[in-house]
Amino acid sequence: MFELDERLKKDSIKVGDFPLCELRLINDASYTWLVLVPKRVAITEIYQLEELDRHMLMNESCLLAETLHDAFSPDKLNVAAIGNKVQQLHLHHVVRFTSDKSWPEPVWGRNPAIAYKKAELANILQKIRMLLADDLVVTEDTDGQLYY
Amino acid sequence: MFELDERLKKDSIKVGDFPLCELRLINDASYTWLVLVPKRVAITEIYQLEELDRHMLMNESCLLAETLHDAFSPDKLNVAAIGNKVQQLHLHHVVRFTSDKSWPEPVWGRNPAIAYKKAELANILQKIRMLLADDLVVTEDTDGQLYY
Repeated sequence: MFELDERLKKDSIKVGDFPLCELRLINDASYTWLVLVPKRVAITEIYQLEELDRHMLMNESCLLAETLHDAFSPDKLNVAAIGNKVQQLHLHHVVRFTSDKSWPEPVWGRNPAIAYKKAELANILQKIRMLLADDLVVTEDTDGQLYY
Repeated sequence: MFELDERLKKDSIKVGDFPLCELRLINDASYTWLVLVPKRVAITEIYQLEELDRHMLMNESCLLAETLHDAFSPDKLNVAAIGNKVQQLHLHHVVRFTSDKSWPEPVWGRNPAIAYKKAELANILQKIRMLLADDLVVTEDTDGQLYY
């Protein structure tokens, strides 16, 4: 039975579910920063996924990336499976601008997270859920239930 | 016609060719660090690849990752498309150990690269080419020709 890593749970808010992955928003208002977490047990590296899951992950990642690109017009997307601190496989998607505070370096381990204010969080969750409405399942039993 | 980015060319040595990607070794002896560069024109994000290419990239990445995992027994692999400094799409595969000098942070933008000595470079290239011999095409017209 898949169970989300405790640190991921603490650092992010559930946006919804794709067929393979849980989509979560990192609670850092400095960036629009999402993670895809495959709902599979004891997987730390992409190559450990079954072949079908690998390709589902590619599909969900590209759908998310293209959606973020179209909605936010970033200078670059950063897509990465790092996992040095949280071993459960999770694929970061970070919307980057040349004006953001970590540019041109990656965001990991650079600046402390700045939590979203309640209204900001409700707005960004609503926006992302609308953008992905055709593909993302949003249920009431998510961690994000406060933000509907 | 695909042409490798000048900075990638300068910072890395060609290991060989997969069907989609050129495989290159970053010239930094601090880590075993490889990049896959899809041989496609004007692509900066994974989602911009055609669907078949996306899945070839997944296959080549997983083959490389599993091979690195089996050969080096790392504590973690870091797989990432960042591209803030070099926009041409390239997918990093970094073999990480809890004992390496950037752990647990990512390697990008942390410590200056330490170039391989000639014999070290020949060894690591030979090792990786042998590990991937069934899938990687190594031709004499690569940048790595000095190291055969």
